[in-house]
Amino acid sequence: MDNNCIFCRIVSGELPSFKVYEDGQTLAFLDIHPKNQGQTLVIPKEHTENIYELSDETMARLSLVVKKIAVAVKNGMSSDGINIIMNNEESAGQIIFHTHFHVVPRFNQDNFENGPHIEYKSEEAKEVAEKIRQEISNI
Amino acid sequence: MDNNCIFCRIVSGELPSFKVYEDGQTLAFLDIHPKNQGQTLVIPKEHTENIYELSDETMARLSLVVKKIAVAVKNGMSSDGINIIMNNEESAGQIIFHTHFHVVPRFNQDNFENGPHIEYKSEEAKEVAEKIRQEISNI
Repeated sequence: MDNNCIFCRIVSGELPSFKVYEDGQTLAFLDIHPKNQGQTLVIPKEHTENIYELSDETMARLSLVVKKIAVAVKNGMSSDGINIIMNNEESAGQIIFHTHFHVVPRFNQDNFENGPHIEYKSEEAKEVAEKIRQEISNI
Repeated sequence: MDNNCIFCRIVSGELPSFKVYEDGQTLAFLDIHPKNQGQTLVIPKEHTENIYELSDETMARLSLVVKKIAVAVKNGMSSDGINIIMNNEESAGQIIFHTHFHVVPRFNQDNFENGPHIEYKSEEAKEVAEKIRQEISNI
């Protein structure tokens, strides 16, 4: 654990999050400032900065959770598509330096690239996380 | 094999490509109209449309090739970062409906989002593919 890392502090429970999936090695939780509702981050619990540092075992395990979350987000949010995005290093847009995949629900003509980030209203994030969790239990 | 699928026809050798990696189940080759030189596509040889259709085995195998290619593209192109991008369905920007990951070398202030697509000059793509292949052999 890196005590200066926001995602490590989410893993430890020191910071709150809207969890959608958790196992021994992996955590998935809502991006709290998404462009589209239901955007989910998938991270290894162990701290690594980016893809270059991942073991094969961790990469393969993460990828299976990403696939599961992609299906659950698509179904839970009734989206028209899904982007999987991983930014490695600052020049690629990485902001939190703990390895993570973005699972992004997309909607026809959603103007995602140029649209604003949104804030969830009270209780909304909880409801969105619950929708996605329910879909995971159906996979 | 889907005879109407460009990527299936690249896998079969009916259409040419600048290959950077190949194994029994997976192929990686240069995006021939990239924004940044060295952009590489990683695909399963077997035809599936997108992430929802992948078996766990194929997803895990693909992810390990993506990681290997990410390191090789970063080193071969001396890039400052790497994006991994996967677009599923038209609303998410998918254009070729054969499952694929984009491995994108990024450079500081490269204006990637708004920059134009480029054409490789004669022999240039061959040289770029060779640089990445050499890095793969060093991993």
